[in-house]
Amino acid sequence: MKKLINDPVDVVAESVAGFGAAHADIVRVVADPLHVVRRDAPVAGKVALVSGGGSGHEPLHAGYVGHGMLDAAVPGAVFTSPTPDRILAAMQAVDAGAGVLLIVKNYTGDVLNFETAAELAAAQGIDVRTVVTDDDVAVTDSLYTAGRRGTGGTVLVERIAGAAAERGDDLDAVASIAAAVNADARSMGVALTPCTVPHSGEPSFALAEDEMEFGIGIHGEPGRETLPMEAADRIVDRLLDVILPDLPFASGDRVLLMTDGMGGTPLAELYIAHRRASERLAEEGIEVVRSLVGDHVTALEMQGCALTVLRLDDERIELWDAPVQTASLRWRR
Amino acid sequence: MKKLINDPVDVVAESVAGFGAAHADIVRVVADPLHVVRRDAPVAGKVALVSGGGSGHEPLHAGYVGHGMLDAAVPGAVFTSPTPDRILAAMQAVDAGAGVLLIVKNYTGDVLNFETAAELAAAQGIDVRTVVTDDDVAVTDSLYTAGRRGTGGTVLVERIAGAAAERGDDLDAVASIAAAVNADARSMGVALTPCTVPHSGEPSFALAEDEMEFGIGIHGEPGRETLPMEAADRIVDRLLDVILPDLPFASGDRVLLMTDGMGGTPLAELYIAHRRASERLAEEGIEVVRSLVGDHVTALEMQGCALTVLRLDDERIELWDAPVQTASLRWRR
Repeated sequence: MKKLINDPVDVVAESVAGFGAAHADIVRVVADPLHVVRRDAPVAGKVALVSGGGSGHEPLHAGYVGHGMLDAAVPGAVFTSPTPDRILAAMQAVDAGAGVLLIVKNYTGDVLNFETAAELAAAQGIDVRTVVTDDDVAVTDSLYTAGRRGTGGTVLVERIAGAAAERGDDLDAVASIAAAVNADARSMGVALTPCTVPHSGEPSFALAEDEMEFGIGIHGEPGRETLPMEAADRIVDRLLDVILPDLPFASGDRVLLMTDGMGGTPLAELYIAHRRASERLAEEGIEVVRSLVGDHVTALEMQGCALTVLRLDDERIELWDAPVQTASLRWRR
Repeated sequence: MKKLINDPVDVVAESVAGFGAAHADIVRVVADPLHVVRRDAPVAGKVALVSGGGSGHEPLHAGYVGHGMLDAAVPGAVFTSPTPDRILAAMQAVDAGAGVLLIVKNYTGDVLNFETAAELAAAQGIDVRTVVTDDDVAVTDSLYTAGRRGTGGTVLVERIAGAAAERGDDLDAVASIAAAVNADARSMGVALTPCTVPHSGEPSFALAEDEMEFGIGIHGEPGRETLPMEAADRIVDRLLDVILPDLPFASGDRVLLMTDGMGGTPLAELYIAHRRASERLAEEGIEVVRSLVGDHVTALEMQGCALTVLRLDDERIELWDAPVQTASLRWRR
């Protein structure tokens, strides 16, 4: 294992400290219990969005804290859910009286710990709703989950619900938009290489030089099957062959297409995949009206890619395009 | 070699096509001869900035085409300079009569080809200036260069000179700012793993599991020395031990600190390095007033990092903060 780290025990704390140093114009880092809040939190009158989960998926979630997206992110240890006390502290820090929406990826540990934190917060009079994301079509009831896993769609939920909160929607409305976006998003990924958790020092699984893991999870957990390595276009088609019929997406749909890296994939390769995915969607009569290409939900240094397709409508496009000011997504059109 | 590609021959064309599909709101891709221009080029009255070089360093340069940065980028084959005809076509596409500034990284092939293109453009009446970037303090007269190599500082030159052009500075003024930024920027990198050029299929060099290449170039060309692998903080200190005395940076300086990935380094690790670099600069009395962390000038899937330190003044900060709208750098403060 070769990593740009110091003691594996300090990886998350040191990384979040560096994040705070780099983006002090956007966030504040609270060291104990560790969480990241937007600099101007709590924002009067606004519903607060809180997400979190195991570290190792950067820029998820801290990279999405800021205007138009999350109010707080709660990083756990690498691939390990944050504890309820940490989640509760983040909720308390950002609640401005309008309530808190928890956005939770569907992994057993996260669901349990966020549920406990929600109960503790409710006992303190904080109005809480929870949306569990489960956009990954690869597997059901995996190593870490009951049901489907939450992956790339989580970023889209955070952005669109974050924009709704920013325009002044109340807690039920923001929760409803978040749930609807999750329901209309589908993702699937493929790994070319495994990843190594700093603590363990050993790759999470083995892949031969001529193999890929199809339907990989973001913790290196198994996918659907190990397949012979193929050309990028064939891999993209395989992913879309599962993604598109699942919702199903249909001719005439307008969609957002996210081509996501896994942490170790060169950007140029992601654009090659994005090119084929765009072509294929056009062939199916599906119009890609928004694109996102890069590392958004990663698995340490894993190589590979994941595609997320989200059905859009006028409202979602308007919310997507609204100003956002986070470390990793930022625009004002 | 395991890459998310189709035929190695098509890597650049397919990647740039995907880039164009993803960012049609910002750029136009011209397929033959291949170059990328900002969507609204030529921009009346504005000095045009053109850069380019071998591919494999994405998002450099196409990711920096847009308002407030480059008017055109000219990608060559992987790690191979674009030919003069391609550079000339880009210059013709973006020149609006106010002249063209060429920003060229100091590699022999790039310097020659951009020089030829500049002569051809001048013969057609285009007013041309050239700034050659050479911010990398690692080596002098390397495999690819006479003098120092141009690396991360190039992004900062493109941004700050791009902002100067956007505010209406004339060609001499923009060239002068670009040269001054290059002169005040220093970079150095370290590789933990090699990279593999798609055409060759073999890693560019070998590193044992307990080794790192100190002073690596962005083509995998040798650095200063192969050293035993160390903790991140020690690696960062080693880099700054060379970077800081070189300008030299001094107590009281205000700087921009860029912690750059090589393509395959997880973002979380870059933040760990950025944390130590920020601390170290503070210890030296140098104030980090702007930060940039992520993949900006890469070498395919190489793992490692590079640090760039740029001395700032009020004007440079104002130009840095001015609106920028490219695929990979985007803000309006």
